[in-house]
Amino acid sequence: EIVAAVEAFFAGTDRPLAGRRALVTSGPTYEPIDPVRYIANRSSGKQGHAIAAALARLGAHVTLVSGPTREPTPPGVTLVPIETAVEMLAACRAALPADVAVCAAAVADWRVAEAAGQKVKKTGGAPPTLSLIENPDILATLSAAGPDRPRLVVGFAAETENVVAHATEKRRRKGCDWILANDVAPETGTFGGDANTIHLIDAAGVEHWPTSTKLAVAERLARRIDAYFGEGKA
Amino acid sequence: EIVAAVEAFFAGTDRPLAGRRALVTSGPTYEPIDPVRYIANRSSGKQGHAIAAALARLGAHVTLVSGPTREPTPPGVTLVPIETAVEMLAACRAALPADVAVCAAAVADWRVAEAAGQKVKKTGGAPPTLSLIENPDILATLSAAGPDRPRLVVGFAAETENVVAHATEKRRRKGCDWILANDVAPETGTFGGDANTIHLIDAAGVEHWPTSTKLAVAERLARRIDAYFGEGKA
Repeated sequence: EIVAAVEAFFAGTDRPLAGRRALVTSGPTYEPIDPVRYIANRSSGKQGHAIAAALARLGAHVTLVSGPTREPTPPGVTLVPIETAVEMLAACRAALPADVAVCAAAVADWRVAEAAGQKVKKTGGAPPTLSLIENPDILATLSAAGPDRPRLVVGFAAETENVVAHATEKRRRKGCDWILANDVAPETGTFGGDANTIHLIDAAGVEHWPTSTKLAVAERLARRIDAYFGEGKA
Repeated sequence: EIVAAVEAFFAGTDRPLAGRRALVTSGPTYEPIDPVRYIANRSSGKQGHAIAAALARLGAHVTLVSGPTREPTPPGVTLVPIETAVEMLAACRAALPADVAVCAAAVADWRVAEAAGQKVKKTGGAPPTLSLIENPDILATLSAAGPDRPRLVVGFAAETENVVAHATEKRRRKGCDWILANDVAPETGTFGGDANTIHLIDAAGVEHWPTSTKLAVAERLARRIDAYFGEGKA
């Protein structure tokens, strides 16, 4: 009975993204300071993993490039585990061409200029100063014109203030097609939590989604991606 | 049958640490840079949680002060979850008096001098420089003479080179009784892995333990702590 249900599911007609290739990034990146210490972003990977799962359920061939998370790899999704932003960019490039890229990872903007090969010792003197250098911008790189640009590039903007204004500016700066903006101020409980309030920003303006679970956000996004390709086919 | 076995276990005679209070620290600390970013140490919490479990099995009343980990709280252990080193120290002080303290957490040596209240934005200019200040030294604080000093204070030294020399010096500097030193160079797989090679350093010298699982290291340490109190009782 279960086998039959699974077979029916995978053979089902509701797989409109069959034949489409999707690239999804998820989780944090870890940027090493030395072999023991690192800088990270708070990201549970729940939203990115849920998007990968939703796209796979609609039939897409999904590559999920993810930093360290507690989330299980969704069924039918190919996981490429990475730690740093530099590794994530290389894995994303290797996953191209793709029809759609969804950048849900919380990529560290900066890494330590020179990670130490040995553990940095407390010397009793002044604490070290960490010199940071900018990481590659994965969303902007994927959005840059070129033969390999996915037809639809979707980014996230985690903001703590002026959410829509910051995200609208981010969309313009990055060159992506859609930005899903959310408010991650500590009092919202978005980080590590299950709920998310999304504002979708595209060329046409802003669409406010009702607060819902990260699973429902993923499902809605996957359906909207499907609709986008459906319109394009017409 | 299971109930009987559980009752026999808890009523069993092999609970030589019954009546003893133990404080165990475990996991990493997260030191915020801003609401989104943090500095952390690599620590799975496996060793610290295993030690808490082993001490509880021998009958001790165990308080486990731990940073974020994936490890389940061992049965019979009181968990105090924390994020930062400052929070860990406060929780440790609150758990005193204790007969034994085992500091297995990978506490960040430094924190950011002034964590930002809002997300630090990429401005297109130079990356920010992080000014660090020293965190409280939890092992040294617990080891400092005073009426509340646990009779036995045990520290860990995670080293990537000159393991025994660094750890011997650390024992002297911190004022603790025992140091369990291990080699965490990336090629050893100690971080996140299940195996550990321990060198126990006390006033008498160095004892090299065979490479074994973190569970076996915890069991051996708990037995040695019991022996220490046994000798003291004689």
